[in-house]
Amino acid sequence: MSKVLPKRSENYSEWYNEIVKRADLAENSAVRGCMVIKPYGYSIWEKMQRALDDMFKETGHQNAYFPLFVPKSFLEKEEGHAEGFAKECAVVTHYRLKADPNEKGKLIVDENSKLEEELIVRPTSEAVIWNTYKNWIQSWRDLPLLINQWANVVRWEMRTRVFLRTAEFLWQEGHTAHATAEEAQSETRQMLDIYARFAEEWMAMPVLKGAKTENERFAGAVETLCIEALMQDGKALQSGTSHFLGQNFAKAFDVQFVNKENTLDYVWGTSWGVSTRLMGALIMAHSDDNGLVLPPKLAPIQVVIVPIYRSEEDLQRISEKVEPIIKELKANGISVKFDDDDKYKPGYKFAEYELRGVPVRLGIGMRDLENGTVEIARRDILTKESRSLENIAEHIKNLLDEIQTNIYQKALQFREDNTFRVDAWEDFKTRIGKGGFVLAHWDGTSETEEKIKTETKATIRCIPFDEGNESGNCVYTGKHSKQRVVFARAY
Amino acid sequence: MSKVLPKRSENYSEWYNEIVKRADLAENSAVRGCMVIKPYGYSIWEKMQRALDDMFKETGHQNAYFPLFVPKSFLEKEEGHAEGFAKECAVVTHYRLKADPNEKGKLIVDENSKLEEELIVRPTSEAVIWNTYKNWIQSWRDLPLLINQWANVVRWEMRTRVFLRTAEFLWQEGHTAHATAEEAQSETRQMLDIYARFAEEWMAMPVLKGAKTENERFAGAVETLCIEALMQDGKALQSGTSHFLGQNFAKAFDVQFVNKENTLDYVWGTSWGVSTRLMGALIMAHSDDNGLVLPPKLAPIQVVIVPIYRSEEDLQRISEKVEPIIKELKANGISVKFDDDDKYKPGYKFAEYELRGVPVRLGIGMRDLENGTVEIARRDILTKESRSLENIAEHIKNLLDEIQTNIYQKALQFREDNTFRVDAWEDFKTRIGKGGFVLAHWDGTSETEEKIKTETKATIRCIPFDEGNESGNCVYTGKHSKQRVVFARAY
Repeated sequence: MSKVLPKRSENYSEWYNEIVKRADLAENSAVRGCMVIKPYGYSIWEKMQRALDDMFKETGHQNAYFPLFVPKSFLEKEEGHAEGFAKECAVVTHYRLKADPNEKGKLIVDENSKLEEELIVRPTSEAVIWNTYKNWIQSWRDLPLLINQWANVVRWEMRTRVFLRTAEFLWQEGHTAHATAEEAQSETRQMLDIYARFAEEWMAMPVLKGAKTENERFAGAVETLCIEALMQDGKALQSGTSHFLGQNFAKAFDVQFVNKENTLDYVWGTSWGVSTRLMGALIMAHSDDNGLVLPPKLAPIQVVIVPIYRSEEDLQRISEKVEPIIKELKANGISVKFDDDDKYKPGYKFAEYELRGVPVRLGIGMRDLENGTVEIARRDILTKESRSLENIAEHIKNLLDEIQTNIYQKALQFREDNTFRVDAWEDFKTRIGKGGFVLAHWDGTSETEEKIKTETKATIRCIPFDEGNESGNCVYTGKHSKQRVVFARAY
Repeated sequence: MSKVLPKRSENYSEWYNEIVKRADLAENSAVRGCMVIKPYGYSIWEKMQRALDDMFKETGHQNAYFPLFVPKSFLEKEEGHAEGFAKECAVVTHYRLKADPNEKGKLIVDENSKLEEELIVRPTSEAVIWNTYKNWIQSWRDLPLLINQWANVVRWEMRTRVFLRTAEFLWQEGHTAHATAEEAQSETRQMLDIYARFAEEWMAMPVLKGAKTENERFAGAVETLCIEALMQDGKALQSGTSHFLGQNFAKAFDVQFVNKENTLDYVWGTSWGVSTRLMGALIMAHSDDNGLVLPPKLAPIQVVIVPIYRSEEDLQRISEKVEPIIKELKANGISVKFDDDDKYKPGYKFAEYELRGVPVRLGIGMRDLENGTVEIARRDILTKESRSLENIAEHIKNLLDEIQTNIYQKALQFREDNTFRVDAWEDFKTRIGKGGFVLAHWDGTSETEEKIKTETKATIRCIPFDEGNESGNCVYTGKHSKQRVVFARAY
């Protein structure tokens, strides 16, 4: 049997690392800052991809693929963008290795293969894509251009953490071009709404929607919208961003079009992305001291059936009994695993599936066969009950829905319990230290934002959309504020 | 209207380039040797991915993700492997850019960010993966390990060609580990059979299965199996490879396991891959002088319906008439596009869909409405017929199957017409110059293979599995030969 996990309350960070490891989700690779996503972790990511991809396509987007490399001169073109990414670029300078003349079996860089212009491994693809769009867009007839890419990107991070912050990560990046500012803004908002819907309906993770402050904007954007989720340790996690790029990239890459009035104009752009960081969010939002808790909609195995038997004949009888149930569940689109692997004992299996967050576990032994019952264990609330096999598939189907809802409600309740409206500076400092979202007034200046960050380590997570227009006085300077913003310490 | 394509018979290479461009499949990017896969091309690749991925999963494989970067020292570990890839490596040497002090707005490599060890952008992932497997495999219980990865890879090619040979390409790479040589060999063969099945059933492209000669083996493999297809210009295209790695990588990366007899042994490996090169194969195998021809199973749009109308009322009436047909087709899993875009005329649309290889096109105008008919155009044989709307969905469903079969049969017939058994050296030289597969005897030596290549530009595509054991005399040296092998000029 495997050893007990660290408790969240004692060492949250270690608890997270251990779940990632022991639920077989991912691991640090031997390559600095890069992770290996293991099959079980990757199958969750595949479920996320499929759900998001369907939503993108439903809203008229198409996938495409653009080069991994960004020539240095492309990156330079949009000034803010260049500044924002220059410090974390993996740079390709040569294209060949050769045998080391001094040591047999070793390779060295062939200095004769130096590139005329260095290539950057894409940290994001605006530069490469807008350079391409220049040739794709001539007229209003070519707009809107609604494209998404699933890809790997590299940002050289000094302190990395599996899923949350890695040098290489997987993501999707949407890049759209429009004839008007209004249309681009509405696209920016539409994609944010899709991210929020995905977070809530699939990941069972409530999110706040809002705009970033100027300080926290994407390098090259006019406005950055985001979704922010609250983790169980009271820290915020930015889970997706959608940027209105204005005409910044169109101007940098000279992307003009003839509009319906037959005059030339620069196109309006957006970009938006979510990444494997969502895996970190998913883990931290729901899991408990027994391991991973997965919302059924993203669980690679939704139901596991563990036979409890001594002889081959017992196993045979159990198999026959559960076969029609498995068939019925599968017909309902439910993924089921019948684990008759004889290398491990039932107790070991129970613990493993708990650790891996399988939402529903059925245990069936000889007494169950006699009684026509099965033991059903729920991962989310850790209950067990014995139940008749009659209509069991229907029951499980409903149970999965119930679990999905329950996990979401629990996370929502947690967020509500940990969201505070604070007006006095002393209260603010105390509250921020304890975690949670703090809704406070802010005078709207970067200066104040920076000071608050320096003194409390809290950042403005977003200027929320649905906080109304209650005006007040800045919690730090006392100056006028139009609405409350969301502060928190963040990942 | 767009200008006419070059003819295959006049300029095959230009014909290929123009189809890639005008069917909106892909284009060369501004980044040397890297392509942009455009939405229409990418949607075909997505269909290929889905079909292959399903086949991999049905045979027990799981997807995972490994780092983009290979430390130089990893690449060095398997000697043959290192030699094979050293000359085409994109090398990351630095991790930061900084502002150029001499020119505002420009960036230069920050020399203080030099990496201690260079990182290679993966040309393939054996090195990184076997280094990881070392930690994943301890006992026979951990075997077999059946993993696949969908990823981008980079091989610095000097002469590139969209889809066929690009510096960056997309692919899948399977990497498996087994307890015995027999099991690994049977996996190697199983995956080759899957590739062949995919090529024939999905791509409608007949392939020869066989083994590569020692010369043509994957760097680091004990044996390389391959599928080879014949393009319309008589050149061969290697379309997929499956490698038996023996214990080479296990030894290089010290991957040992405790077997059932409780002794330590090195594991046995395989790797196998297909890439976006298949897109090139698909284009060249079937297309004609009017443009792309797609097998229905891989066509993003299987049926397009073009309304022919003058007034909005006409369009309205046509829409109402076709709506239930579209619904029925979709219910049958057929992808249909109703193209009522009024920016373009029907004639233009017809030409565009022909160029893009949409298998079935329906044209419906006012006279059709009166008569209860529709005009059906087949892309594969370019026929048109008027047909009653009765049971039209059922008819189209069958028609798509018929087209799939017909395209395959046509390609098979072409291959049979262009496969020759040759015994005399003079005949061989003449025949090779005209294209096609040439089955000839070979004495089994690399020396002879090289000489034939130098004199005729032909390589041994494979030692085919199903050529029987007819022995004979080498076409070049006259020495003994155990069986005929397949020669061709190749992409």
